[in-house]
Amino acid sequence: MKDFDIKVELTKDKKEKPAFDQLSFGTNFTDHMFVMDYTKGQGWHDPRIIPYQPITLDPAAIVFHYGQTVFEGLKAYRTKDEEILLFRPDQNMKRLNRSNERLCIPVFDEELALAGLKKLISIDKDWVPNVEGTSLYIRPFIFATEPYLGVAASDTYRFLIILSPVGAYYKEGINPVKIAVEQEYVRAVTGGTGNAKTAGNYAGSLKAQVVADAAGYSQVLWLDGKEKKYIEEVGSMNVFFKINGEVITPVLNGSILEGITRKSVIELLNHWDIPVVERKISIDEIFRAYQEGVLEEAFGTGTAAVISPIGELFWQGEKLVINNGETGAISKKVYDSLTGIQTGTKEDPFGWRVKVE
Amino acid sequence: MKDFDIKVELTKDKKEKPAFDQLSFGTNFTDHMFVMDYTKGQGWHDPRIIPYQPITLDPAAIVFHYGQTVFEGLKAYRTKDEEILLFRPDQNMKRLNRSNERLCIPVFDEELALAGLKKLISIDKDWVPNVEGTSLYIRPFIFATEPYLGVAASDTYRFLIILSPVGAYYKEGINPVKIAVEQEYVRAVTGGTGNAKTAGNYAGSLKAQVVADAAGYSQVLWLDGKEKKYIEEVGSMNVFFKINGEVITPVLNGSILEGITRKSVIELLNHWDIPVVERKISIDEIFRAYQEGVLEEAFGTGTAAVISPIGELFWQGEKLVINNGETGAISKKVYDSLTGIQTGTKEDPFGWRVKVE
Repeated sequence: MKDFDIKVELTKDKKEKPAFDQLSFGTNFTDHMFVMDYTKGQGWHDPRIIPYQPITLDPAAIVFHYGQTVFEGLKAYRTKDEEILLFRPDQNMKRLNRSNERLCIPVFDEELALAGLKKLISIDKDWVPNVEGTSLYIRPFIFATEPYLGVAASDTYRFLIILSPVGAYYKEGINPVKIAVEQEYVRAVTGGTGNAKTAGNYAGSLKAQVVADAAGYSQVLWLDGKEKKYIEEVGSMNVFFKINGEVITPVLNGSILEGITRKSVIELLNHWDIPVVERKISIDEIFRAYQEGVLEEAFGTGTAAVISPIGELFWQGEKLVINNGETGAISKKVYDSLTGIQTGTKEDPFGWRVKVE
Repeated sequence: MKDFDIKVELTKDKKEKPAFDQLSFGTNFTDHMFVMDYTKGQGWHDPRIIPYQPITLDPAAIVFHYGQTVFEGLKAYRTKDEEILLFRPDQNMKRLNRSNERLCIPVFDEELALAGLKKLISIDKDWVPNVEGTSLYIRPFIFATEPYLGVAASDTYRFLIILSPVGAYYKEGINPVKIAVEQEYVRAVTGGTGNAKTAGNYAGSLKAQVVADAAGYSQVLWLDGKEKKYIEEVGSMNVFFKINGEVITPVLNGSILEGITRKSVIELLNHWDIPVVERKISIDEIFRAYQEGVLEEAFGTGTAAVISPIGELFWQGEKLVINNGETGAISKKVYDSLTGIQTGTKEDPFGWRVKVE
């Protein structure tokens, strides 16, 4: 790897760490952050690690008005041998640049960002928790900073990486969640921003989530924006179904996020010779499979929760209880393998782990 | 109107004003801003006017990651008699609260916000420009401030109003613009956030705008997200067509913004007994009307540009030149009437003007 000039300013005021056995998701942040700036004509410049501190922006900064911003989520794990491992971080940097292209944000040097991330983690390494089920959640994000009220791509941007020691994303942990099929709201549509990791997709999803939550469901299952017929994602995760021995996940159609956990699950299933296919799946097909007794498992995949089994789907007044509301064998096997590879307790035949020195 | 307790802290360091005959759009800001905070359990509190100053936020603030933010745009005008007039500001406050509901942001007291806006303008009244074609652009906006990386509605928000003396939005002014019909990208879809004034809609539109711009077009004409067949908006404006003597605008379908200029144009046309109808319009219908020689006028409507005539539409390799590329009679009449009412040179039979004391 190239040697990058990343300046470091250490904090003089280290924070008290939270108890690692009582971590919530995304509320505690470490002592430092990575920052880099973009100026038109100059490109990305001044990569640096500085104490975690507030961001100061002009009230007219484009991010507040037109949401020109992209982000990523990945994790670092502490092994029993006190090594710190990242999981496929190159994939996150690649996807961040793909999101940039959709949002008209200038692409950055992925090797530099990865070097910055590793340096940041090595500085804040005492924040990588060592309790089972915990990890260090990593949030790279880029936002438009130019103070300008015309609707146009910004001439200036900031790239940050912040770190947060986290526990389980869902309070249910690996236990199955109840999901409502969303009939009114839509997450994304082909030609929109659904396959980019950008703020607007998440802002638009909040309302359905609030409605589902009030009805006792953890998340919604999103249908496509055109026909409200085909399955897209579950909450902010990709989704898999096991029907009659075959694992099926919606094919990437431009409105579905290209999940890195999704990709890893497909690669694992292929490795195990378990049949897996990417194609369109309608909610009617799921309902038919349920009625015929061949809807064997369903689970969401994403960085935050890794694998989240679906115990019940609510659709048009019907409650589809899947695998007696229990975690299925494939869901469990995929979860154990992925988390085993991530945390260093299992072999890594794919070379997915990246060690932080 | 109720008497609201809005604290005022005046700046000790007044800025130099830009030359009012050389104003661009959205780059200069006045000396003060209105601010109000929301905290769960406490509601909206501490409405105040303070010197225009940077916003300081935790890097984990939800607005940077999940784009939970809404905004408005309206204008104040200085009349020849040195009065300052607002145009239908109650409509903007109502729409801001409708956007809030879609984005799970708590609604605010519209009367209080309007009182805050008037007080802010009266303090910064010397910033309302007096040159023809200029105005004071007003940007109310609300954003999520809670530092939390879970995907959820924030428990805290900030409401700001900032002011910017502006010239024409398009360098073409009232001159007709060339528009490309967008075939690949989509602005919004029913069930999404298209009818809310929220950041993600604008972020998603940038790419198409960049492509159109490179091809020599000012804006894109958006088609619907389901069939890419029906006309929705033009750039960030609503759109009107005059076909065979009748004025037609796309009906509000949940993915189109409910424009206040759009509404005012419809009310003006009704007042003049000019036939106007809100309905679905396909791009094929527009092309047929063009071929038959009955596509008489086309124009966009919005607060920033008021009326923006369309001189040419580019669609599937065809250039549809409308009204010889000149401003049509209805476009001109609507523009003159609206700007006349707004700036106080014409009667206001509808009671749309609101005076700032």
